[in-house]
This record gives sequence, C-alpha cells and structure tokens, in this order.
Amino acid sequence: MVREHISTIFDIELDDLRQSILIMGGKVELMIANSVKSLVERDTALAERTIALDHEVNNAEVSIDERCLELLALRQPAARDLRFITIALKIVTDLERIGDQCANIAKRARELNEEPPLKPYIDIPRMAHWAEIMVKEALDAFVRGDADLAVKVCKDDSFVDDLNIQIQRELLTYMIEDPSTISRAMKLNYISKSLERVSDHATNVAEMVIFMVKGKDIRHTIA
Amino acid sequence: MVREHISTIFDIELDDLRQSILIMGGKVELMIANSVKSLVERDTALAERTIALDHEVNNAEVSIDERCLELLALRQPAARDLRFITIALKIVTDLERIGDQCANIAKRARELNEEPPLKPYIDIPRMAHWAEIMVKEALDAFVRGDADLAVKVCKDDSFVDDLNIQIQRELLTYMIEDPSTISRAMKLNYISKSLERVSDHATNVAEMVIFMVKGKDIRHTIA
Repeated sequence: MVREHISTIFDIELDDLRQSILIMGGKVELMIANSVKSLVERDTALAERTIALDHEVNNAEVSIDERCLELLALRQPAARDLRFITIALKIVTDLERIGDQCANIAKRARELNEEPPLKPYIDIPRMAHWAEIMVKEALDAFVRGDADLAVKVCKDDSFVDDLNIQIQRELLTYMIEDPSTISRAMKLNYISKSLERVSDHATNVAEMVIFMVKGKDIRHTIA
Repeated sequence: MVREHISTIFDIELDDLRQSILIMGGKVELMIANSVKSLVERDTALAERTIALDHEVNNAEVSIDERCLELLALRQPAARDLRFITIALKIVTDLERIGDQCANIAKRARELNEEPPLKPYIDIPRMAHWAEIMVKEALDAFVRGDADLAVKVCKDDSFVDDLNIQIQRELLTYMIEDPSTISRAMKLNYISKSLERVSDHATNVAEMVIFMVKGKDIRHTIA
C-alpha cells in the first residue's frame, strides 16, 4: 500500500512535469508565431513583447531542470520513468534555445521595420508556421509517448530545410541585382536560418521521443 | 565496507565517464581546427576527413548517454554525483552539435576550395582558435569542477562574438563593392556564424559547470 501511494504521488509529479513542459512549449510556440508576425505586420511593439517573453522561457528552463533533479534524487525512478525525466532535461534545453532564436528573429524584425520592406513576405511566414507545428507536435509526441507523431516531425524537417534554401537563393538574386538590398537581405537570410534552426531543435526533440518510446536510438540515422 | 566498496566502483565509473567525455571533446576540438584548416589550406581531403569524423562524435554521444542512464538507474546517485551525471547528459548534446557545425564548415570549405579565394583568411582562423580553446577549457572546467575556469570561458564568448560581427561587416563591404563575390562571401559568413555557434555551445557547457559547482544557476544572467 505504501508503495502504491508513493507511485501515485510520483505519477502526479510526472504529470505536473509534463504540464510544465507543455506550458513552456506554449510560450515558445507563441514566440515563433509573434517574432515573424512582428516582421510581416511591421509591429515593433510585438517584437519587443516577444523579446521580453524570452526571459519567461529562460526561467521555465531553470525551474524544470531543478524539478527533474529533485525527482531523480527523491524518487530514484527506473526504466521508462528514468528515461522520461532525462529526456525532459534535454528537451527543455532545446525549447530554451528555440526561445533564443525567436528573440533574435524579433531583434532583426525590429531593425527591418525601420527600413522600407524589401519584398512581400510569403515563404518566411510559411516556414514559421511549419516550425511552430513541428515544435507543437514534437511536444505532443513527448507527453503522449507517440513515436509515430515524432517520426512525422522528423520528416517535416526537410520541408523547412527546402524552404530555407529557396529563400536564400531568392535573396541572393536580390543582392546581386541591387547591392543596396544587401543589408536587408542578409537580415532576412538570418531570420530564415533561425527558423531552420528552430525546426532542427524540434527534430532533436522528436528524435529523443522516438528513443524514449522505442528504447532505440535513431538519432544520427535519419537522413 | 560494502558501502565503501560500491562507492569505489562508482568513483571508477564516474572517472570512466569523465574520460569518455574528454575523448569525445578531443575529437570535437580536432574537428574545429581541421574544418577551418581545410579552408585556409584549401585541403579538400582534410575537409572530407573532418566530415567523416562527425559520425564518431555522433556515436560517442549515443554511447555516453546510455552510460549516464545506466549509472542513474544502477547507482541512484545523490547530490553532487546526480548533478554531475545530468549535466554530462546535457554536455554531450552540446558537443555533438559542435560536431555538426564543424561538419557544415567543412562542407562549405569543400565548396569554397573549388573557387578562387576571396581574400586571405585571418579572422576566421582566429575565431576557430578561440572557439577550440573555449571548448577545451569548458570541458576541463567540467571534469575538474573548476568554476573559475568556466567563468573565464563565458567571458571569452564576447570576443568570438565581436570577431563574428567584424567578419560579417567586412564581408558586407566585399559584397557591396563587387556583387560577383556575394556567393563566396555568404559561404564565409556561414562559416563565421557556425564558429560563433560553436563558442555559444562552449559557453552553454561552461554555464552548466558553474551551476554544477556552485549549485547556483547563472544561465541567462551573464550578459
């Protein structure tokens, strides 16, 4: 009975951990959407709010890390639970770095909003949309232990990579045709690469979920 | 006596873990040096070897991860040892991603070696040199539990950041003056940013070491 009682408390603690990660994920998803929205709608106030939100994401990482250490020390989990907690430790680091990328995007957006727009933005919002879905699905896969969904996320990554290459190529054309666009084009190039990095982090999370569920490490094997 | 015996075996296991991380770190440091050397000396064969070394770094991450999980499950460490192992889990992820960055640098070097050199490379090798030292010192700080050395690494990061900004500015000048340089300049820009990311990873490692030693989280507080 005592053992069962402990197990129930531990289950609640693990659920709390899942919830904290989803809340942190929600903030990160908002940062992805709003950093690019602040560019597309030339909304510098929104860029500022996005940059400010990064502090909350940083604090969430620190607090979830501490919680994981406490659970490891007090509950001494085995097998599946142990794997879940150690992967949670790694996942929050990825989420925190996505937050950093979004803050950087918002900073570039703030600068670009001071200049005339180079072109209508079509592919960058598409990239942001996909990256946001990838982060959301990677975290859903994590909390539900859904390896199939995680595999889908890994596959979606190539779509974002292709968009990034396409954007870079297009920006190169602008720069060659009109050197006065170079500074703005390089900032957009930076934003595109940052979104690609966001999707890389989502892929890292998804790969860890597959490892967690299947106990098999597929990192570094998916092309 | 039994307790002492277990403790001794565990100490040996922790030492093995330290050694494995240092060996992985050594490979990563070699990748930093050789990826940039393959550019400066236009040595495409060296670029290929650097790209190939990334597989070994990937495998090292998987194997150290597994080892950490085993130690957590079998030894149920507390306090300092628990912190050490969970930070080892995060550090190998940073090392693996440094390997990815270096493989990407080597791929760009391979492409740039097919074209006439844009300019003599001075600042990029300097950046690589600093980034390599930062990685080495961050890992030394980790295995020795040396918070002072870790603080030094965090401070050195701004030097690499400054070099990156300087390189980007210089490349921008090339591109504006002669659009035929744009494609090469963007590849060099990519290499410079990749080196900056390498030093960011070293800084992440150093911040975690400070947390490990002082039990205080300074992540997100050093400007």
